[in-house]
Amino acid sequence: MKALGIGLIGTGYMGKCHALAWNNVSAVFGDVERPRLVHLAEADAELASSRAREFGFARATDNWRRLIDDPEVDVVSVTTPNQFHAEMAIAALEAGKHVWCEKPMAPAFADAERMLAAARSSGRVAVMGYNYIQNPAIRHIRSLLDEGAIGTVNHVRVEMDEDFMADPDAPFYWKSEAASGYGALDDFAVHPLSLLWCLFGHVEAVIAELARPYADRPLQDGGRRAVENHDIASVLMRLPGGVSGVLMANRSAWGRKGRIALQVYGSKGSILYDQERMNEFQLYTTAGRASEQGYATILTAPHHKPYDRFIPAPGHGLGFNDLKVIECRELIAAIAGMAAHAIDFNHGLRIEKSVHAMARSFREGRWIDIDAG
Amino acid sequence: MKALGIGLIGTGYMGKCHALAWNNVSAVFGDVERPRLVHLAEADAELASSRAREFGFARATDNWRRLIDDPEVDVVSVTTPNQFHAEMAIAALEAGKHVWCEKPMAPAFADAERMLAAARSSGRVAVMGYNYIQNPAIRHIRSLLDEGAIGTVNHVRVEMDEDFMADPDAPFYWKSEAASGYGALDDFAVHPLSLLWCLFGHVEAVIAELARPYADRPLQDGGRRAVENHDIASVLMRLPGGVSGVLMANRSAWGRKGRIALQVYGSKGSILYDQERMNEFQLYTTAGRASEQGYATILTAPHHKPYDRFIPAPGHGLGFNDLKVIECRELIAAIAGMAAHAIDFNHGLRIEKSVHAMARSFREGRWIDIDAG
Amino acid sequence: MKALGIGLIGTGYMGKCHALAWNNVSAVFGDVERPRLVHLAEADAELASSRAREFGFARATDNWRRLIDDPEVDVVSVTTPNQFHAEMAIAALEAGKHVWCEKPMAPAFADAERMLAAARSSGRVAVMGYNYIQNPAIRHIRSLLDEGAIGTVNHVRVEMDEDFMADPDAPFYWKSEAASGYGALDDFAVHPLSLLWCLFGHVEAVIAELARPYADRPLQDGGRRAVENHDIASVLMRLPGGVSGVLMANRSAWGRKGRIALQVYGSKGSILYDQERMNEFQLYTTAGRASEQGYATILTAPHHKPYDRFIPAPGHGLGFNDLKVIECRELIAAIAGMAAHAIDFNHGLRIEKSVHAMARSFREGRWIDIDAG
Amino acid sequence: MKALGIGLIGTGYMGKCHALAWNNVSAVFGDVERPRLVHLAEADAELASSRAREFGFARATDNWRRLIDDPEVDVVSVTTPNQFHAEMAIAALEAGKHVWCEKPMAPAFADAERMLAAARSSGRVAVMGYNYIQNPAIRHIRSLLDEGAIGTVNHVRVEMDEDFMADPDAPFYWKSEAASGYGALDDFAVHPLSLLWCLFGHVEAVIAELARPYADRPLQDGGRRAVENHDIASVLMRLPGGVSGVLMANRSAWGRKGRIALQVYGSKGSILYDQERMNEFQLYTTAGRASEQGYATILTAPHHKPYDRFIPAPGHGLGFNDLKVIECRELIAAIAGMAAHAIDFNHGLRIEKSVHAMARSFREGRWIDIDAG
Repeated sequence: MKALGIGLIGTGYMGKCHALAWNNVSAVFGDVERPRLVHLAEADAELASSRAREFGFARATDNWRRLIDDPEVDVVSVTTPNQFHAEMAIAALEAGKHVWCEKPMAPAFADAERMLAAARSSGRVAVMGYNYIQNPAIRHIRSLLDEGAIGTVNHVRVEMDEDFMADPDAPFYWKSEAASGYGALDDFAVHPLSLLWCLFGHVEAVIAELARPYADRPLQDGGRRAVENHDIASVLMRLPGGVSGVLMANRSAWGRKGRIALQVYGSKGSILYDQERMNEFQLYTTAGRASEQGYATILTAPHHKPYDRFIPAPGHGLGFNDLKVIECRELIAAIAGMAAHAIDFNHGLRIEKSVHAMARSFREGRWIDIDAG
Repeated sequence: MKALGIGLIGTGYMGKCHALAWNNVSAVFGDVERPRLVHLAEADAELASSRAREFGFARATDNWRRLIDDPEVDVVSVTTPNQFHAEMAIAALEAGKHVWCEKPMAPAFADAERMLAAARSSGRVAVMGYNYIQNPAIRHIRSLLDEGAIGTVNHVRVEMDEDFMADPDAPFYWKSEAASGYGALDDFAVHPLSLLWCLFGHVEAVIAELARPYADRPLQDGGRRAVENHDIASVLMRLPGGVSGVLMANRSAWGRKGRIALQVYGSKGSILYDQERMNEFQLYTTAGRASEQGYATILTAPHHKPYDRFIPAPGHGLGFNDLKVIECRELIAAIAGMAAHAIDFNHGLRIEKSVHAMARSFREGRWIDIDAG
Repeated sequence: MKALGIGLIGTGYMGKCHALAWNNVSAVFGDVERPRLVHLAEADAELASSRAREFGFARATDNWRRLIDDPEVDVVSVTTPNQFHAEMAIAALEAGKHVWCEKPMAPAFADAERMLAAARSSGRVAVMGYNYIQNPAIRHIRSLLDEGAIGTVNHVRVEMDEDFMADPDAPFYWKSEAASGYGALDDFAVHPLSLLWCLFGHVEAVIAELARPYADRPLQDGGRRAVENHDIASVLMRLPGGVSGVLMANRSAWGRKGRIALQVYGSKGSILYDQERMNEFQLYTTAGRASEQGYATILTAPHHKPYDRFIPAPGHGLGFNDLKVIECRELIAAIAGMAAHAIDFNHGLRIEKSVHAMARSFREGRWIDIDAG
Repeated sequence: MKALGIGLIGTGYMGKCHALAWNNVSAVFGDVERPRLVHLAEADAELASSRAREFGFARATDNWRRLIDDPEVDVVSVTTPNQFHAEMAIAALEAGKHVWCEKPMAPAFADAERMLAAARSSGRVAVMGYNYIQNPAIRHIRSLLDEGAIGTVNHVRVEMDEDFMADPDAPFYWKSEAASGYGALDDFAVHPLSLLWCLFGHVEAVIAELARPYADRPLQDGGRRAVENHDIASVLMRLPGGVSGVLMANRSAWGRKGRIALQVYGSKGSILYDQERMNEFQLYTTAGRASEQGYATILTAPHHKPYDRFIPAPGHGLGFNDLKVIECRELIAAIAGMAAHAIDFNHGLRIEKSVHAMARSFREGRWIDIDAG
């Protein structure tokens, strides 16, 4: 496959993360052509130029449509705020580019549906930026489940907690506006849902409880404003194969920084994982004598693919940014027409449908069967 | 206060635990008269005699009513299987004895109500055997909450998991019969509820999902029998003061042995606890510089009352049986008319009402307001 | 065997611990006659009386020789400060009593030798109070080593750390006087040595470095006094079978409360243990696939004898005081002429000889072969 | 500063790691010119070409001297096996290039001395590849020590353990030959020494015990060959300021994968760190109430510089390869004449002198004062 020409829109948290991935993917994996970093777009022209120089892009623009029109660009990374995803991704797909879009697809479900429609009619690859599923630990857990290492799974719990909204004295900002979405459900629940999909398939039915730890927050210039969405979400779930589950998300959870804690229980064992210690997982099985059974803390290592592409020694540790490099490698595989471990717009839409169903189940105080509506 | 005369009915897991508590309470605390171990009842006469000798009781009987009639007995420990609690406790109360009854009160709510009525009309002390609330770690957490160490609590999660029902090949036994109760809700949920009560007050509303990891189990003599209750319970809760919560219980959770994991989130910090490491808890607060904030793992120590009564050195560790000694000390305080940290029949009944409400919320697929019924 | 008559000298930290053990041993184990608590001695007559009542002893005295003369006393627990051990233990042995003496035997090696001589000529059982070796976790580790679970052991590290001397502003007290002993070596090293003996046999050769974190300490009434011994000891060791080892002890180690951390490396695996989490240990073996190898955290459980005598459920946890109950059961076994897992005066003396050799190796700056030197 | 021209010699484990660092340093830090990847050398010509393409280098060669002669190359990364370091680094320095050399400098101390001499006479920057000191956790620990967060340090322990030599059935290979060096001392001790230097300064005096877990190993074609060096090293140390220390290294430690465990004790607290969980450290201080003191587990975060250059969110985790990017940034600072946190050839030589002193202290069975010789 010839080298792909890359366009990157956005240079914030995720923009930089994509830039690093495009810079590293060939050096890390060695089995793909080194991408050509062609075009970078950023609203501020000066910032666009300096970031292009830092990130190694050949050209810079403050007009993202110019990037999409660039014939040397084959793939567009969309890393702008959520409300811009639909417009940019659709334009890119219509221009015949492959798209790598940060999650979620769009605040409004109808926009997300239009994105999927655009992807389908374009025939191009359209993949979401769900990086946590790429962790070698998670991919190994998936293979352990496949081979029955813990028997038949019957119960799962997943928690995602951070504390960036935990301070009640922090001024009101847009993330507490209803217009920004449901709160923890949008910000967080999609990540656990991506992991659940990866391990079990899509959630079937839900009932959620949303909670608001702080009724209002101070305004910068005095006074207070009511919080309009919910920092805490707790959800009972039914998953494929009769698996029962609980999903919990809290963006006001003091002490939690990047927690995504997973507990998977099966008929022959169980598995634990926490993103805050992303280079390890815990496995309990009923193999061997009962007197030596216990959770084994397994450090990721070259056996856990594709850890070996980064480091040949076990227990040395990947970082958060490395997950995006793996995701990038999967995207390139998809573009080459190979099987890829990635969440495309089709599955991305289903994840967002689950989130909307959770919100509705809370409003209506009842279980919602997601595919029934 | 003069030495109390003790009667003990039952010599199994909890019977032995009570016996040890009665043997130790005076030596450990030093501020109560050493109880006189008067009478022990056990269905098998020979066993009754040998256990009386081992445990230090003066008399033994295979007829528990004789124990209740013994004028030297002031307090009766009821540690028999759940279905006998009501009859024995009521008889003891009617005979003017104080009662220390293992939880739960009774499988049928009406029986539990009769127990409370008997306690009320007797004027005697009637206390349930909820030992986990006695852990110095839990009691210190309670005092931290009281003094606002983590600000205003807004969210709580509690999980209780063990694996004694996790083996799908284990033969069907009575715990899978509907007659034995709801399953995990009865076996486990009462414990987390005791902790929640201790820290926050009684749960107000619930919606539960119950799950059955194994549809049937093998019979000893061939064939299989359908499982009639649920090993897994997941419950959304509303607690006093607008606190949202999740309670999870699983008695088929491979790898878990005595887990009761608590997460308490507040406006200024959070607290974690796990019964499997009962001699420590974790505290995160927003005090001090952000760059050094993290969960402090605090080992219980003489500062955490009444740890000091057992060991004068920090970090040396209490055991499960020691909690019953503390509970025993609280019972003696209650009998002496002092304030006691214990769950009496009144609060015990409310806990069991919560359990029944959970089961009903599952059957009806809706939230139940517990006090509304 | 008929019920033993018990005499207890001392009612402090260890006195209470022995009292609890004598109260519990029969109820816990069920296979020994309940001891008769005959006589308690304590320097203060009033305290002696009140403690006797609390602990359940029939008689009290402020003259320990009267206790030793009591014909109903069969066994004497010696729990007084170290400098009294020799006189009391020897008197008890000469009076034909069995002796259970808290460690160490005596500050002066010659006194310890006299204690052993007295034990030998008496023909009575004389056992030291090394409780940590009684932990079911440690006993199970011993059996794992015996069966070769981690192959041939080649390296061991053991650390014992607490922080009761860590505060440089705490006033000078007797533990910093040379007359009280070497410091960390006396206070702590004997415990790791008891574990090493239990697992591997006695240390053969050593070289130590002793360190003094604080040159002097404040006096109560102003001024400062030079510290005369060493709070920190670091020792290189050679153990039987070519095992190399390191022993570290620090009684000024801020943050450590009751740490005794053990690392045992063998040709097929390794084992970790820490007394601060005394109800678990960690096992790594090369069995099975490399991709699932990791340290298993094993919670103690009824498989790990004699945990089952205390609690029938796994993972519920023993406490520090429970270890003394097990030790008491071993003492009773020894008195009955059965094999016992205990450190008698013979092995106790060899442990203290090791400590003296460590101190000498530091003074002379060279390796000391313990049995040669 | 203009963009540096980079030459890379070697494309193995560390060669790839350097390549990633050179690719990332500008995108991550944003404050340095993006380096030009000019020339790559690798013994095999074909491999050289393909790696150059993957890593983004403009030219490739199988003759490293050609790379050193390349006028566009400003800095040479030396990542070949240890025995080639001296020749390559000296040639590069003599050609006026800056040098970034993987550790250790050279197997023979005289070669390392020649490297330092070459660096001095060249006036160029010559830095060793000690990456662990670059971890934001370690750098923050350094600043905590500087500000007295744990008072005056008095004791330190450091352990480095892996299990790549732990299998006794693995065939004999060059790492067991005396010609390859001392064993664990060479392979491992330099890393802990780099951390000790970073935190406290160079070790002053040592006495070591070296051990050989396996006397011989199987040969590929039958028979066995004696192991000629030592997989295990245990060292007592004296550090600047009267700090006592212990350094332990074991490359046959089953279960350990990338462990570098550090314990630092001071007069007001202590700090713990383990490279296997490189995104956290533990801090205990005596600040606040004793009843809430415990080790705080602090996840690295944007406060801990330069974590923020990689990820704006706390607790998301850096990886092993990211440390090399930070090291690269420090090298560029040094080249620009700014203060840099790096180990130059001068300090690198002193570290290797310490290792040779350890080996000698073992041979002679006595303490060695390193600077005295």
